[in-house]
Amino acid sequence: MSPKTFQMGLTPRILRSPYYEKTVENGVAGFSVYNHMLMPTGYGDLIGEYHRLMNDVSMWDVAVERQVEMVGPDAHKLAQYLVPRDLTNCRIGQGMYVPVCDFEGGMLNDPVLLRVEEDKYWLSIADGDYDLWAGGVAAAKGWDVKVHIPDVSPLAIQGPKAEAVVADMLGEWVKDLRYFAFKQTELEGIPFICARSGWSKQGGFEFYLQDGTKGAQLWDMVAEAGKKYGIAPGTPNNFERIESGLLSYRSDMDRTVNPFEIRLGKYVNTEIEADFVGKAALAQIKAEGPKRLQVGLKMEGSTDIGLNESKWPVLRNGKKVGHVTSAVLSPKFGHYIAISLVETNEANAGGEVEVVTHAGTQKATITSIPFK
Amino acid sequence: MSPKTFQMGLTPRILRSPYYEKTVENGVAGFSVYNHMLMPTGYGDLIGEYHRLMNDVSMWDVAVERQVEMVGPDAHKLAQYLVPRDLTNCRIGQGMYVPVCDFEGGMLNDPVLLRVEEDKYWLSIADGDYDLWAGGVAAAKGWDVKVHIPDVSPLAIQGPKAEAVVADMLGEWVKDLRYFAFKQTELEGIPFICARSGWSKQGGFEFYLQDGTKGAQLWDMVAEAGKKYGIAPGTPNNFERIESGLLSYRSDMDRTVNPFEIRLGKYVNTEIEADFVGKAALAQIKAEGPKRLQVGLKMEGSTDIGLNESKWPVLRNGKKVGHVTSAVLSPKFGHYIAISLVETNEANAGGEVEVVTHAGTQKATITSIPFK
Repeated sequence: MSPKTFQMGLTPRILRSPYYEKTVENGVAGFSVYNHMLMPTGYGDLIGEYHRLMNDVSMWDVAVERQVEMVGPDAHKLAQYLVPRDLTNCRIGQGMYVPVCDFEGGMLNDPVLLRVEEDKYWLSIADGDYDLWAGGVAAAKGWDVKVHIPDVSPLAIQGPKAEAVVADMLGEWVKDLRYFAFKQTELEGIPFICARSGWSKQGGFEFYLQDGTKGAQLWDMVAEAGKKYGIAPGTPNNFERIESGLLSYRSDMDRTVNPFEIRLGKYVNTEIEADFVGKAALAQIKAEGPKRLQVGLKMEGSTDIGLNESKWPVLRNGKKVGHVTSAVLSPKFGHYIAISLVETNEANAGGEVEVVTHAGTQKATITSIPFK
Repeated sequence: MSPKTFQMGLTPRILRSPYYEKTVENGVAGFSVYNHMLMPTGYGDLIGEYHRLMNDVSMWDVAVERQVEMVGPDAHKLAQYLVPRDLTNCRIGQGMYVPVCDFEGGMLNDPVLLRVEEDKYWLSIADGDYDLWAGGVAAAKGWDVKVHIPDVSPLAIQGPKAEAVVADMLGEWVKDLRYFAFKQTELEGIPFICARSGWSKQGGFEFYLQDGTKGAQLWDMVAEAGKKYGIAPGTPNNFERIESGLLSYRSDMDRTVNPFEIRLGKYVNTEIEADFVGKAALAQIKAEGPKRLQVGLKMEGSTDIGLNESKWPVLRNGKKVGHVTSAVLSPKFGHYIAISLVETNEANAGGEVEVVTHAGTQKATITSIPFK
């Protein structure tokens, strides 16, 4: 039996967020590494942080969510070539969730695309150097577009009271922002983009700070404005995000997985006129139907054995038919729930399977996602 | 003052090496994250591990050193286009250190290139998804070459007695391998490439295991063969690698740094006929001379304040002229030594500077690398 946590030392190789000192000051209990940066993973009371997110409001250092900026005369051409959705009507101030693939249709990342200016797009990326793909493609094509990672560091404000906090800070206009819509703004000279977005289904906003020297100042302003709503520091929360069916790149998918396997087919449009990376492969997968499907598992276990540390095998009558990608003891349901990838002909709701966890085998029933 | 180490939890998002269970069994004391994998960082006695590496032999799980495989009819064409050295005479079984750059000459990685077969190359990469760059470039060019990360996991055997261990295992032929040369081999049915290489200057070999299910078995075979030479587990060792002047990607360089600034100009040949990524930019930098230079710093401090956790400013007469990228209290010299990047006109050997560490300012003298 191996230990569940390890010591990790500080090194200049792994960067720190503009909010780092504030997270330490607030008692951050652990970090992981994400996009070559330290990512806070909790403040010592994950269940308390979950309830605050569900009922009140939480603030998260998510500076690890880097932006791949594409800027220049060919920015639109590059963006349209990288993403499998029609960008013809994508307006400045609009965001879109885009599964970005390789030429075989494998998932390279699942960012949010933001059209920041006419000739400037951001891809707000999950863990992976997607800037290298975008930059390599653009340069080899000879297109006139710069691809780089600018000084932008998101701070998320999430939960049902997030809107009230942000409206108090920025004004009533934020209530009119639709999901993924955003607007350039500033407070006390600190420039940031305010977007209605964030990696939870409890509602909220992200402040894309555009000056890395002002992290502590922005953090303090949010903490102060949120005080009367009960705000406190938190992190992207596995309890909530798994209950809500939000996916985590590298856990729930990687390059060996295509969008149609993981409920992202609705974000792929192979009918559009524009060519894009993976179009032919994705059209073929769509026509043939995916060989695996992502399904929920309602598991029997209600004893806390932690998160899955690796991909747990899913068996049917003793035969492996898939694996669990993310599992958690759900506070809402009182038993384990899991996101899993199983063979398409074993994916029927109601099917009985077994999950081989690191602490024994559990019976489970196939269900839909989000969990109900 | 922030803590120097943090807790990190296990997650399926961060992969484990085929040697992982063996490192835990052997008392690994900490991990970092490198190429989306857990990387062992020590076994609790870094000074003891240093002396074992300097005098005897050490074995390291360096599976995080992933291979970017380029295979297919256009593999050679792609390899030559990515690297700034002439590959015309690169033979099967030969390795070469190659600084790979972007089109502006910025360092994207500093891998070892291995010609594995006529139409198959590996880039044995430092931390970063260079496969995305190589794959994006190749696909956008329409070249017939597959770029992927195969099931290959290096195990390093380093130190003056490494050759004896490896010769006992594989035979006397290993003594004829020149530096970076390699040969496909196997032991008890376990396939691996044996190369004379490794991230130390104490001599040694790397076994590029080609079957991830056989990690524990290969580990045990090396441990058994090395027993009479005093082998024990270790990790890439900052004391030794900084004394020897070996560079660490993301610490000592990144995309904002070019090869001429960091003593890698000898690995860039802008005179060759073939075109390669960054050729024009690199030729211009070479002609104009780099604006910064990597130099050693002999520091005054002999009290252990740990590694530099971030880039320490380097001052001359109170003005910032550069920064330290890697620093350590050298067991060999008994004082701190540092690799730093300073303005070219401040880089003269013997120059007096000050270094702003996280524990106060230290006087330092500019010197050459490797340290003497």
